[in-house]
Amino acid sequence: MTKTIYSKEMKDVLASLFSKYGFNEKKAKLLAEVHTENTLHGVNSHGINRVLNFIEQLKLGLVVKDVEPEKVESFGCIERWDGKLGSGVINAIKCTNRVMEIAKENGMGLVALRNTNHWMRAGYYGWMMAKKDCIGILFTNTEPNMPAWGGKEAKLGNNPLVISIPRKKGPIVLDMAMSQFSYGKMSTYKLKKQFLPFDGGWDTNGNLTKNPEEILTTKNGLPIGYWKGSALSMVLDILATLLSAGRSTYKLGLESHEYGVSQIYLCINPNTYDDLALQEKLVEEIITYTRDITPTEPNGKTYYPGEQSLINKIKNQKEGMKVSEEIWTKIIDLINP
Amino acid sequence: MTKTIYSKEMKDVLASLFSKYGFNEKKAKLLAEVHTENTLHGVNSHGINRVLNFIEQLKLGLVVKDVEPEKVESFGCIERWDGKLGSGVINAIKCTNRVMEIAKENGMGLVALRNTNHWMRAGYYGWMMAKKDCIGILFTNTEPNMPAWGGKEAKLGNNPLVISIPRKKGPIVLDMAMSQFSYGKMSTYKLKKQFLPFDGGWDTNGNLTKNPEEILTTKNGLPIGYWKGSALSMVLDILATLLSAGRSTYKLGLESHEYGVSQIYLCINPNTYDDLALQEKLVEEIITYTRDITPTEPNGKTYYPGEQSLINKIKNQKEGMKVSEEIWTKIIDLINP
Repeated sequence: MTKTIYSKEMKDVLASLFSKYGFNEKKAKLLAEVHTENTLHGVNSHGINRVLNFIEQLKLGLVVKDVEPEKVESFGCIERWDGKLGSGVINAIKCTNRVMEIAKENGMGLVALRNTNHWMRAGYYGWMMAKKDCIGILFTNTEPNMPAWGGKEAKLGNNPLVISIPRKKGPIVLDMAMSQFSYGKMSTYKLKKQFLPFDGGWDTNGNLTKNPEEILTTKNGLPIGYWKGSALSMVLDILATLLSAGRSTYKLGLESHEYGVSQIYLCINPNTYDDLALQEKLVEEIITYTRDITPTEPNGKTYYPGEQSLINKIKNQKEGMKVSEEIWTKIIDLINP
Repeated sequence: MTKTIYSKEMKDVLASLFSKYGFNEKKAKLLAEVHTENTLHGVNSHGINRVLNFIEQLKLGLVVKDVEPEKVESFGCIERWDGKLGSGVINAIKCTNRVMEIAKENGMGLVALRNTNHWMRAGYYGWMMAKKDCIGILFTNTEPNMPAWGGKEAKLGNNPLVISIPRKKGPIVLDMAMSQFSYGKMSTYKLKKQFLPFDGGWDTNGNLTKNPEEILTTKNGLPIGYWKGSALSMVLDILATLLSAGRSTYKLGLESHEYGVSQIYLCINPNTYDDLALQEKLVEEIITYTRDITPTEPNGKTYYPGEQSLINKIKNQKEGMKVSEEIWTKIIDLINP
């Protein structure tokens, strides 16, 4: 059963919840804003549906409340920050803002953040940058959940990658994990008793399968493009780990819960060139060209990265967000037990 | 039929060839070095097998001989260069060296290059950076050769991406196009009358297929990870185009030959941190972890990105390179007609 919740109500309720769990007013509002925005974009799995997990992690002490991320080292346009195991969202907002400052001054910048936690929807920080006319390249490592190509055991994270590009009519935001399907998506197929449209991982016999139930059992998701996504995932983990001197997917897998991940925030400020109108024109040409197609499905079309996310937001702002009634009730109960 | 050629001989022969076609001694040697190195790494398709193509492009005037790439704009750590339709290899070497200079001074740098030509093997420039203790992120756009997800016509390039990381025992170099299989690889399968191991593109009826012959006919290759590689390819094209103010895949597709492409050279210099021993340790941990697996194939193993390329190089240096006799003879004939 779902319930319709509007943006203002969700923000108010979540801010109360986070206040109750010890965040000061500013931080509680920020957390509420990010979870709400992610849900507005249609990504409930990394918005409203993650709130109870986050509270659980706070209770377990995996996420620490009263800390501020700190710059530990810097050279030129590169900085290394320590997240001190604080909220992944609050750390990510701080580092996103910081890297944009560096880029506005130097054309580009990089912040490597260690000892942070799940940032919920990676795309949020890409949208943040794009709205400030910045190009963003961001990624995080995760606990192991995919085999390296050629091996049977999960040794790689799905390491979500974001690339965002400012655009007046709506930013271009690629937000993708290195696994073909997210575990959330596979659970949805399983509940509907449907197979995945393409192979999504390995079954218990070590064969590739479209059966979501099998993959949810083995926890062996398929990297995008087989050996290619396997290699890309590994390289992202190495970059995040060595630039932050933080924990790798290997280290994350030694613990029973995922915490203390490593992330990269890279920002390029294209406004340093004085031909913004030309840049806008070049981007529109590309989008127009990729729209001009014979669709593979009746009434189908192509989308630019981030387009569907924006469509969801506009719809959900107008009509309210569809939220699991069970989850919403649990959240309300936590505020007023 | 193949012929065994050693590195020195190939360099000498190719340098003579490029001199004969009007490059000065320094440039002829550089071109010879890059084509030979790419062949040593086992990538004949982007080494020795591309030499005749390159000469053809010179003759057609698509590649211009007597030009130098030029910096046209800069801000902070970002520079925009114009390749003036010169040799893609010579332009790429110039921009790779330049971006490393910027990064050594500022921690990182970016060079966006427009109006350049095919750089042969993208990984070459990643190896160049890694050997100088630099992290590299490089990509190029190409003419359209894959459909955008949801459409039938090729509207995206396969836009090769390189991410390279220095490492004492052998650098980590990811070098991958956004298509599941290169057209070169598909031709090899076709010649052997074999099917691809996974779907590699669309057949004439618009269905996904493992039949390389069909895909070589439709020229509709499959993006890695279906909609994900489609989105990643599009974003790389947009970045290369707008940062260089150069030609997009759309514009490249308007011509009967691919020339005047746009490229990005991004360099990060991790040596700016003083914990090199720690960084080396973190990277080794990750590699060791991903090697410790039950192989999916008997006697199989996992490789880190770039490992097989290094194995090829060591073997080919010792035993000589296997080169198509037909191609080698044609090259010799061009020098002494």
